[in-house]
Amino acid sequence: MNKLIFSIFLVISAATFGQKSDEGQIKAIYDAALTKGKSYEWLSHLSNQIGGRLSGSVQAQQAVDYTKKQLEELGVDRVYLQPVMVPKWIRGLQEFAYIETSPGVTINMPICALGGSVSTPFRGIKTNVVEVKSIDDLAILGKQRLEGNIVFFNRPMDPTKISTFDAYSGCVDQRYSGAAEAAKYGAVGVIVRSLSLKIDDLPHTGAMSYGDIPVEERIPAAALSTRASDLLSAAISLNPDVEFYFKQNCQQLEDVQSFNVIGEIKGSTYPNEIIVVGGHLDSWDLGDGAHDDGAGCVQSMEVFNLLKEIGYKPKRTLRVVLFMNEENGLRGGNEYANVAKNKNENHVFALESDAGGFTPRGFSFDSSDADFERIISWKPLFEPYLIHQFIQGGSGADISPLKKDNIVLAGLRPDSQRYFDHHHAASDTFEHVNKRELELGAATMTSLIYLIDTYGTKTSE
Amino acid sequence: MNKLIFSIFLVISAATFGQKSDEGQIKAIYDAALTKGKSYEWLSHLSNQIGGRLSGSVQAQQAVDYTKKQLEELGVDRVYLQPVMVPKWIRGLQEFAYIETSPGVTINMPICALGGSVSTPFRGIKTNVVEVKSIDDLAILGKQRLEGNIVFFNRPMDPTKISTFDAYSGCVDQRYSGAAEAAKYGAVGVIVRSLSLKIDDLPHTGAMSYGDIPVEERIPAAALSTRASDLLSAAISLNPDVEFYFKQNCQQLEDVQSFNVIGEIKGSTYPNEIIVVGGHLDSWDLGDGAHDDGAGCVQSMEVFNLLKEIGYKPKRTLRVVLFMNEENGLRGGNEYANVAKNKNENHVFALESDAGGFTPRGFSFDSSDADFERIISWKPLFEPYLIHQFIQGGSGADISPLKKDNIVLAGLRPDSQRYFDHHHAASDTFEHVNKRELELGAATMTSLIYLIDTYGTKTSE
Repeated sequence: MNKLIFSIFLVISAATFGQKSDEGQIKAIYDAALTKGKSYEWLSHLSNQIGGRLSGSVQAQQAVDYTKKQLEELGVDRVYLQPVMVPKWIRGLQEFAYIETSPGVTINMPICALGGSVSTPFRGIKTNVVEVKSIDDLAILGKQRLEGNIVFFNRPMDPTKISTFDAYSGCVDQRYSGAAEAAKYGAVGVIVRSLSLKIDDLPHTGAMSYGDIPVEERIPAAALSTRASDLLSAAISLNPDVEFYFKQNCQQLEDVQSFNVIGEIKGSTYPNEIIVVGGHLDSWDLGDGAHDDGAGCVQSMEVFNLLKEIGYKPKRTLRVVLFMNEENGLRGGNEYANVAKNKNENHVFALESDAGGFTPRGFSFDSSDADFERIISWKPLFEPYLIHQFIQGGSGADISPLKKDNIVLAGLRPDSQRYFDHHHAASDTFEHVNKRELELGAATMTSLIYLIDTYGTKTSE
Repeated sequence: MNKLIFSIFLVISAATFGQKSDEGQIKAIYDAALTKGKSYEWLSHLSNQIGGRLSGSVQAQQAVDYTKKQLEELGVDRVYLQPVMVPKWIRGLQEFAYIETSPGVTINMPICALGGSVSTPFRGIKTNVVEVKSIDDLAILGKQRLEGNIVFFNRPMDPTKISTFDAYSGCVDQRYSGAAEAAKYGAVGVIVRSLSLKIDDLPHTGAMSYGDIPVEERIPAAALSTRASDLLSAAISLNPDVEFYFKQNCQQLEDVQSFNVIGEIKGSTYPNEIIVVGGHLDSWDLGDGAHDDGAGCVQSMEVFNLLKEIGYKPKRTLRVVLFMNEENGLRGGNEYANVAKNKNENHVFALESDAGGFTPRGFSFDSSDADFERIISWKPLFEPYLIHQFIQGGSGADISPLKKDNIVLAGLRPDSQRYFDHHHAASDTFEHVNKRELELGAATMTSLIYLIDTYGTKTSE
């Protein structure tokens, strides 16, 4: 064989072998996920043995200990805890609310305090309710109409949005900033329609902020179930003088010590190029945080398990990061990015799963166009697994502080239809996670990590 | 404007308008489905007020009456019942089974008779069990090993298949033909591992056939839950002499009168070209038949509701057909096709939804390549709704008897991951259907019907 022919032979066989190998490796990843996956068992422990993992809670610490131990048992190169101070907000006793439609005639209402809210006075608040559809409505109504009253934000999520996340984005300002804005007009409390497309009796909590409102001017804020919101709205239409009573005794305590949980496999060829995969370990306290974001944590851990199962040794350094405090502070995500910056670490790729453990449909990317073009070229490899959505825009909250020019950020996109039925509510529980859907998500993430590790990003070339 | 320019103008504006119009119409269909849909309410009635609708049962007749009335209320041109005689098999008293691991030591086992099975003797059957993984195993073991014993078919569904329907196809022969084949070797009963990928305690029923086995040689057949199947298998490994007891008193009665329910809108331009959309109204008796196939029925009815909501008048004749007896006889599908043939009706397109009310992913088509190419050209219109699967092969059981050269048959393809968790089991119930997923399926079906009606098939051009 002369030199030229030999070279051509090498190129062709490398290309052929390379292509086959990717298809084969990805098939091996999916097969392993569906037959030897550990994610469902891990999630069962996080959900059923530990439960809701609000930042600063005992359960959050139990989750740190448990996941650290599980990562150690996977036999990765290094497992460590990254200290981070987190806010500690506690719900306190069960909230209570009712409407009084006429003197002495009351209907109890399913309610829960929003995360970060102050408590009501000890005896609760009872006064008239002014229903609004947006924060803009406040200025129109003004102090005259709002002072001394409870403001009821009742703009529903738009059911015609195909992505329920789009419907959520269109309403979340009411929950996040409603109290801060209403306080400016002298309102004494805020009730927000739960951010769910389902009409049922579950209140959905979630983060809120008082912005720069002084402590003494902060007013309590709570979420009302969608059905109760419809009922309250109807009651107000019938009788604008209807009174609403609610009582909650939540508290913001001092920050406490907590941790991000990190597992690492050192890269064999480019150890200084770091690839992150993660989810957030904290959750709200009402359910057991199975979808949000127990699923993302166990899927991220599963990436390591599946690569081990198929005998793949990463060329770049892989880190699974279980972030603390996504829900009410993002302290874990910020701290991870700060430490990375201070250490001058070169992060080339980060993937987050924080949209539920449902059937995966694809990924969103926050990247340069060149990197996106390269990743899109891998799309055919995912087609046998019905992964079809590769879109630009958005990744995940915890990895977003890593954003810089030369990094690709990505988010797993599962089917979104059921997500907000459970999001931040008492029904975000293990039994609403389907084992295969969870495993398919983990396999999809692992396949992308495999490709990124094998071929690098444009930047890491 | 001279003639040429005028002609060009006409072509361009028709093209522009046509394109916009399709996008706009489809958007209007999805919006209407998600805001004004009736399918969920109809399904609630079928599932919660009527329940399981086994062919020949009172509930099946209630479902005929109810859906006929609902179609009449939609104000379609014509609603009628098409008579068809159906088999009537009844389960009788609750089945009962246990294994005896040593004398007097028993474990109860969740079991249910397969549809069409004969009963056990009054006192039940108690004998040794021979586990096999396939029908082929029977010939290898032979009469010597099988005679007088119970055969236990325990080949699990393959979890690595991405479409769970492929995993189902790979195992269903055990359920359908296992008893007929085992009877040839003198087995006295057959136990089949439930066709589900989930490990739980629910037995899954389904159709079986004795083929040409004479009545007096037929042996009873039952499904065992997946968890119990694993347990039985382990018990046999420990002690091959373990005995299995089961008792069931199901019966095949005389055929009874039933009906397909048909609603029709006369086509404005091509009234002799008929488009069918349908599902099957009968179900198994264990759950309430919400996914299989209550969902397909209400989605098909919803097609009429949504076209009405957007003010679309079909050019071709549209029929919604709710077929009777898909599960254990296909009498409704066969009768509909026979009548159509006898009347020389020209069916150009038929669409069935019979794969659950889950998030729709696309369609499968049984058609000429030319028709498939035309349909594939519409795929971009579906992309905003995350409908991405347009594949050749397979449609639906009930519409398959309509098969001929010049017809396009299609089946809705929803996400399949959860389908067999509930299929033919007590958990096929209303609460496992998500309202938005059901509605998106109906909108997807309506959009395809709209396009077919507007542009016709190759054949109907």
